Amino acid sequence: MQLGLVGLGRMGGNMRERIRAAGHEVFGYSNDPNVADVKSLAEMVEKLTETPRVVWIMVPVAATEALVDEVGALLSPGDIVVDGGNSKFDGDGARAERLGKRGVGYVDVGVSGGIWGKDYGYALMVGGEKKDVDAVKPIFDALKPEGEFGYVHAGRHGAGHYAKMVHNGIEYGMMHAFAEGYELMNAAEIIDDVPGIIKSWREGSVVKSWLLDLLDKALDEDPQLSKIRGYADDTGEGRWTINEGVRLAVPMNVIAASVFARFVSRQEDSPAIKAIAALRKQFGGHAVKDA
Amino acid sequence: MQLGLVGLGRMGGNMRERIRAAGHEVFGYSNDPNVADVKSLAEMVEKLTETPRVVWIMVPVAATEALVDEVGALLSPGDIVVDGGNSKFDGDGARAERLGKRGVGYVDVGVSGGIWGKDYGYALMVGGEKKDVDAVKPIFDALKPEGEFGYVHAGRHGAGHYAKMVHNGIEYGMMHAFAEGYELMNAAEIIDDVPGIIKSWREGSVVKSWLLDLLDKALDEDPQLSKIRGYADDTGEGRWTINEGVRLAVPMNVIAASVFARFVSRQEDSPAIKAIAALRKQFGGHAVKDA
Amino acid sequence: MQLGLVGLGRMGGNMRERIRAAGHEVFGYSNDPNVADVKSLAEMVEKLTETPRVVWIMVPVAATEALVDEVGALLSPGDIVVDGGNSKFDGDGARAERLGKRGVGYVDVGVSGGIWGKDYGYALMVGGEKKDVDAVKPIFDALKPEGEFGYVHAGRHGAGHYAKMVHNGIEYGMMHAFAEGYELMNAAEIIDDVPGIIKSWREGSVVKSWLLDLLDKALDEDPQLSKIRGYADDTGEGRWTINEGVRLAVPMNVIAASVFARFVSRQEDSPAIKAIAALRKQFGGHAVKDA
Amino acid sequence: MQLGLVGLGRMGGNMRERIRAAGHEVFGYSNDPNVADVKSLAEMVEKLTETPRVVWIMVPVAATEALVDEVGALLSPGDIVVDGGNSKFDGDGARAERLGKRGVGYVDVGVSGGIWGKDYGYALMVGGEKKDVDAVKPIFDALKPEGEFGYVHAGRHGAGHYAKMVHNGIEYGMMHAFAEGYELMNAAEIIDDVPGIIKSWREGSVVKSWLLDLLDKALDEDPQLSKIRGYADDTGEGRWTINEGVRLAVPMNVIAASVFARFVSRQEDSPAIKAIAALRKQFGGHAVKDA
Repeated sequence: MQLGLVGLGRMGGNMRERIRAAGHEVFGYSNDPNVADVKSLAEMVEKLTETPRVVWIMVPVAATEALVDEVGALLSPGDIVVDGGNSKFDGDGARAERLGKRGVGYVDVGVSGGIWGKDYGYALMVGGEKKDVDAVKPIFDALKPEGEFGYVHAGRHGAGHYAKMVHNGIEYGMMHAFAEGYELMNAAEIIDDVPGIIKSWREGSVVKSWLLDLLDKALDEDPQLSKIRGYADDTGEGRWTINEGVRLAVPMNVIAASVFARFVSRQEDSPAIKAIAALRKQFGGHAVKDA
Repeated sequence: MQLGLVGLGRMGGNMRERIRAAGHEVFGYSNDPNVADVKSLAEMVEKLTETPRVVWIMVPVAATEALVDEVGALLSPGDIVVDGGNSKFDGDGARAERLGKRGVGYVDVGVSGGIWGKDYGYALMVGGEKKDVDAVKPIFDALKPEGEFGYVHAGRHGAGHYAKMVHNGIEYGMMHAFAEGYELMNAAEIIDDVPGIIKSWREGSVVKSWLLDLLDKALDEDPQLSKIRGYADDTGEGRWTINEGVRLAVPMNVIAASVFARFVSRQEDSPAIKAIAALRKQFGGHAVKDA
Repeated sequence: MQLGLVGLGRMGGNMRERIRAAGHEVFGYSNDPNVADVKSLAEMVEKLTETPRVVWIMVPVAATEALVDEVGALLSPGDIVVDGGNSKFDGDGARAERLGKRGVGYVDVGVSGGIWGKDYGYALMVGGEKKDVDAVKPIFDALKPEGEFGYVHAGRHGAGHYAKMVHNGIEYGMMHAFAEGYELMNAAEIIDDVPGIIKSWREGSVVKSWLLDLLDKALDEDPQLSKIRGYADDTGEGRWTINEGVRLAVPMNVIAASVFARFVSRQEDSPAIKAIAALRKQFGGHAVKDA
Repeated sequence: MQLGLVGLGRMGGNMRERIRAAGHEVFGYSNDPNVADVKSLAEMVEKLTETPRVVWIMVPVAATEALVDEVGALLSPGDIVVDGGNSKFDGDGARAERLGKRGVGYVDVGVSGGIWGKDYGYALMVGGEKKDVDAVKPIFDALKPEGEFGYVHAGRHGAGHYAKMVHNGIEYGMMHAFAEGYELMNAAEIIDDVPGIIKSWREGSVVKSWLLDLLDKALDEDPQLSKIRGYADDTGEGRWTINEGVRLAVPMNVIAASVFARFVSRQEDSPAIKAIAALRKQFGGHAVKDA
């Protein structure tokens, strides 16, 4: 089938290749004319001669909202806009409604797999109405890994982004579990070969996982991680997961702790610990470190 | 080679089969005469005609300490005792020393893989002196999965159990990350198909892992987990991991939270929350629930 | 001065008494005619003969929004609406703006002190413009405790409710710290007299606090807390505090843990721990408890 | 009565003054001859002419064990050694037994109050046998604050140090609750006067406490805490509290989080977060910061 694809960055660019490799026709648009197939959104839509026309938006969250409306305005009843970015789930319903007033369908897709997805396939979590989801199915089949896994129609509008949010929340927690174990083994006197232990777990262990494979790979490249600073950004989904736990009264101790640890990693100094040090000085006369 | 194997329960019994399948001769001893190959430890040791004689102890932690000494007393200089149970690492040094006085070697092995290890192989983390570890190597090769992973000589006496302890600590954290995400999706209004989402993640996602495969399997059998109560035991390694973090000043927020959550799951009522409810009544006149 | 007071429940009723005791004239309105001084909001406003007229709203959060507008519509330019309820800070700006279009001022007040405030005075955290805050100052002086503490003009519209939110978040964390210590001492074999220890800390200790005094009082009434179930509601501010931490990238480990513990206390069964138990059964053959 | 006092540092020195002010005779021994009343432990014991002789040891934990035995050897049946330091509770039983073989009694005392205790009195938590505790009672009465609070006989040997351990664990949690709230208010856009808010809570609020008074005092001296670095030591009791929670299966989320946060504050760089950053680079191509 044909697909309009808006956004050809690290994710979008790879996805274009994978979709094309599956035999589909992709018209990619980007701000960067060097990678774009078409010069404008309008030209992209024009090239889509089959109906329903499907346009997949794969851009940073901040740019998505405006683009959904802009693309929607170029489409006709029956056509479909797909948001494959890391948008927050709670905006999907309103987008679907806005597009729906013009008869345009909306599908939200959470896409996992990072830079490895091009070769191995992407895990896709999809939200929207069945008829729209079905229309995009050939593209989903091209993007997902081979076999029975890697794709789900999770529910109504927003369910795809919701499932991706939870996926990322879980990912934060898993990463931090490995990180704590890694740090502990590095501190333990009797452990001689931390990278060797990590590597050994890749088969036969209960913690066998892709994240573990990647940690092993990172340690192959830099056994002490001596070239990397302990600084970690977060991309929103972890925070939203906590907020959803708070909203729905679901305890989130592990995922929250993993997100909070990233916050700490980005602080030059901790106002909270300043207060602790100030208190210790007050009641116990304990020495403080000068700022 | 030949191996004496003490303990033929869920783990030991399967291991005997896997070792035999690799062509080794195993003399298994158990309290249960129906599964034992020999009638006594003495008979077991007698059957071991090759030197060094190697005896692998695979029994519950509580029974290990006495058995190590009992078996050690039957062996001769150069022979080796292997403890493959979930013993705490900090006792390994003393055991090695006690056996060492009689010239008997000691190897501690952390064994992961559970009931699946028989077919897929066990991940083995080994601590001890190189000459002893080398002598047991053919057995390790039989037990581990095929390929380059699944085995590590982690360091001196205790390092094998230490690595297994950390492995299990990480496992606790990973399981709880999945558990939180699972609970959140069940609470979310817009999610229709939680088991389907879990299943979709098995390929292409960042959280791809054996634990996820098992969660999918569990949901195939009982999609709402309606037959299972939210009650979880813990087997010691998670607690020891926290204590080690405390000892070495390594923050353990995620692993600690996952262990604490199991503590809560086993309480009929929470004294801590009783105190909270009592306080709320005192300062705010908030209603309490009668016990 | 004169004050219109809407809401004469546990808080509002006590506040009316305290304000009157300070010599001010209060016209209280309530849905309950038995406690109301006036029959309608309109009558209440009519009775306020001094300008600017000040009406203090002290009702449950859910009812506040509509009342602010209803009262505002009865007032004239220069008059002032005070919201002393536990409203979320992020709605204060819009309310101030809506009232401001009619020339009516708005002041948000976080009120702490619970049922003890009537006698001891309430801690007041105030947000709004200086001229409006100054106009209400005699009422604040009546409500606050004697002495230099118990009152702050924290900042612009919303700052009063924000400070109250943080106050309550801290309160959650403090309560839970006491709760954990209380539970631990009850579990410890060598501790004979938990209530006695709590009581002893009331003077001379670092944890000396009003919450501790209240815990002591609760234990005087019920030394084992045997009449209270471990079930604790939460009133919103703790959740908002976590969400603000998430928004501003401020680590909230302690306060979040204290709120999550209340979530757990209200669950019949834990879906998260069901998932853990299901996983343990899958990989280790560990027994589960039937639901 | 008469008291031998070993250790005249920040705590011991102040305690000597307070005990003397109550009319008792104190013979203080210290390594520092400038502050000591006697030249040796032997001379100290000689000066104690009343029986039973009571010697209170108030030295850093590391020096306590040897001193208890050294002092014990100088005493006679019926005499009493008091350990008022921050010793770990689980050593008290063995000390009591060792001294008991010589007929010497042992009392463990947890002492709270820090540098303020001299004037306000110390909170005392006492463990040991009633007859020994009774014999030291006049000294306890001198040290404790006036009034009904500030003293408890908590249980058998070790109970005093146990109660003090829990007290400090709670203190860690309370301090961190304040610290989180403090940091959040500093980050909030609409809060103008953080020190003013802290000060306002000192009366009428639910968080009214001595720690809050001290935080206010610290902010009076340095409103931004700009002279203090966010670095906090810990003195053992917090760690022991976690370990006890782990041992007794008591959830310790809040206290553990507060201790872990201090660990983080002392790290130059976080190995755990290095691992997180390495993983993010591997799966997502996310940039890392160079070490």
